[in-house]
Amino acid sequence: MAGNVKFFRFVGGYVCGAAVTTGSCVAVMKLYKDEDTEDQREPEKVPQAQQEIGRYGFPLTGAEIRYYANHTLSYNQAMKTPRWVAEHLSHEKLLGKADRKHCKFKPDPSIPEPFTAHNADYLGSGWSRGHMAPAGDNKTSEQSMAETFYLSNIVPQNYENNAGYWNRLEMYCRDLAKRFDDVWVISGPLVLSEEGADGKKTVSYQVIGKDDVAVPTHLFKVILVGKEQSASGNLTNNQSVSETLALGAFVVPNQPIGFKRPLTDFQVSLSELEKISGLTFFPKVERTTPSLPNLCDRDSCQLMDFKDFTLYLTARKVGSARTTVKLEKSMAELKEQGIAPDDYVLKLYQEKKKELENKEHNLAHLP
Amino acid sequence: MAGNVKFFRFVGGYVCGAAVTTGSCVAVMKLYKDEDTEDQREPEKVPQAQQEIGRYGFPLTGAEIRYYANHTLSYNQAMKTPRWVAEHLSHEKLLGKADRKHCKFKPDPSIPEPFTAHNADYLGSGWSRGHMAPAGDNKTSEQSMAETFYLSNIVPQNYENNAGYWNRLEMYCRDLAKRFDDVWVISGPLVLSEEGADGKKTVSYQVIGKDDVAVPTHLFKVILVGKEQSASGNLTNNQSVSETLALGAFVVPNQPIGFKRPLTDFQVSLSELEKISGLTFFPKVERTTPSLPNLCDRDSCQLMDFKDFTLYLTARKVGSARTTVKLEKSMAELKEQGIAPDDYVLKLYQEKKKELENKEHNLAHLP
Repeated sequence: MAGNVKFFRFVGGYVCGAAVTTGSCVAVMKLYKDEDTEDQREPEKVPQAQQEIGRYGFPLTGAEIRYYANHTLSYNQAMKTPRWVAEHLSHEKLLGKADRKHCKFKPDPSIPEPFTAHNADYLGSGWSRGHMAPAGDNKTSEQSMAETFYLSNIVPQNYENNAGYWNRLEMYCRDLAKRFDDVWVISGPLVLSEEGADGKKTVSYQVIGKDDVAVPTHLFKVILVGKEQSASGNLTNNQSVSETLALGAFVVPNQPIGFKRPLTDFQVSLSELEKISGLTFFPKVERTTPSLPNLCDRDSCQLMDFKDFTLYLTARKVGSARTTVKLEKSMAELKEQGIAPDDYVLKLYQEKKKELENKEHNLAHLP
Repeated sequence: MAGNVKFFRFVGGYVCGAAVTTGSCVAVMKLYKDEDTEDQREPEKVPQAQQEIGRYGFPLTGAEIRYYANHTLSYNQAMKTPRWVAEHLSHEKLLGKADRKHCKFKPDPSIPEPFTAHNADYLGSGWSRGHMAPAGDNKTSEQSMAETFYLSNIVPQNYENNAGYWNRLEMYCRDLAKRFDDVWVISGPLVLSEEGADGKKTVSYQVIGKDDVAVPTHLFKVILVGKEQSASGNLTNNQSVSETLALGAFVVPNQPIGFKRPLTDFQVSLSELEKISGLTFFPKVERTTPSLPNLCDRDSCQLMDFKDFTLYLTARKVGSARTTVKLEKSMAELKEQGIAPDDYVLKLYQEKKKELENKEHNLAHLP
């Protein structure tokens, strides 16, 4: 490498600082034929002095970005989970009737076989298959919902956390899409250290199944919200639009969390999360001048409370009940928890009751 | 994403399988300004449907390839160690007089500050700074040797392992360069799971310093050797040259290993190492037809034995002794270990003794 040339560029776009002064050059990945050919770099992309080292190709890490219909991710081939999963929510994008009943968890066909998790790794492991891009953010399209069930979007998650606190956090993100024009969410797993009595810090996590799928100790969500605004207030076609942004970063332990802990208990600074995750989030956002407003100052950061959450879960159970017995059981459970059904649940119950009674009556009187 | 279009290509080279059929598209990274701008992708590289998700950039993982004067690596920003380090050795490349005395461990200036390790993380931690690309492979150039002391090339390593077994393995690689035209070596850290009494598998590793640098449980080396051969035996200018290759993959625990364990005890299949590391090695090598020969069938895979290794270490100590007291101490230690100095060590000792006695005599008679 020429020690005196500060920067030199090859045809096709790649930049390399002279090794003496900047320490290293960084490579370009250029993919030509399919997603498995990370090594299909043009020969001129590799500096002359390095061609010999790379004659049989440099190791592939599989950390490239993978695009799906409605989410984006980078995969961790060693842990067999995603590294990060990105989404964009808006009020319109959350409408639709796609149903998770028609979806099945399955290996992502784009992940090479030695690096993919399989359903067998999860089943009987004591851990649930936790979505990072939630199915509930993808009701607008059967395809986008089906793709969230690829195991590339899944991590081993505590059942109660998955159905409870994390679920409420996901609902909060969807709620934000009613109050902001745009909501960007990045979710992923973490393995964090703990300090022992001897002062030694240790990272310790279970791996499950024959594929050794890593069970994260924690999960993170970074939420960026944006409200469009024009200088004059009313937008015309060619007017420039700027956006007021706010951001919150949260790290939640992968274990049961009750209703008492507010979301702000789990808020961390973005720079702290970046250091522990090894990731740089939203690299195009200017962070310092002025500093990015805190989401929890701009919005409530309040998750749904016990009563509303229980009513929400009951409404889901009522809506999907297939027999009057199951229907009545859902309502009885609600009563046991000391919660009176609200108008929405009552109406849903009465409609469903009529529907199921008709069905059961007709079945009983089949010729 | 258009479900019926099997492949579509944007200007500038990128390919995306339709999401319905192939599961995902994989991105191109194109770097324009410097090594930190992994996100400087041209807008048209991101599929239309994904532009909204990526408006403020996708998370940067820093897994891109970094080129140095004589080694290449991919860095792990979460663990603050390299992910893999690649080298090419040949007989000529191993000559030279660059001395590690002039080198200092230091943060790699190309690694963003939040993700780099610092010397303070290692000092007093109980772990040594273990080179992945060894200093000893870089005697040919001051610059290439200095670059191996960047902490991007270093992992926390057990002292005895670093100075002993791993050192002998590195020497074996250099020895291979006498018997083969080309030797490619890829080295790196691993964190492997252990099965507990309850059948649960757990990955557990220490992290050190304020940067939480990950202490690997194991280290790997993949060694590919090549011998050039022409069809006729004698090469002419335009004759096609093919290469007979052989490969060995080794996983060594990051702890003291005595002289009794042969290297073959630590040999693993390449596919096994790939699955546990999440890496694909030498992607341009055809592996199956015919299957890649085993290095340990083609060569001895014998590390230097206790006697030769002790003589080698004594020669180094003798060569670098700065006083006659230190010189005599090295020779006395050799005797204590029951090893007689060979001709090489004896000659070196006598030369050094003369040199030091002269120096000390002159010092004692300074005016």
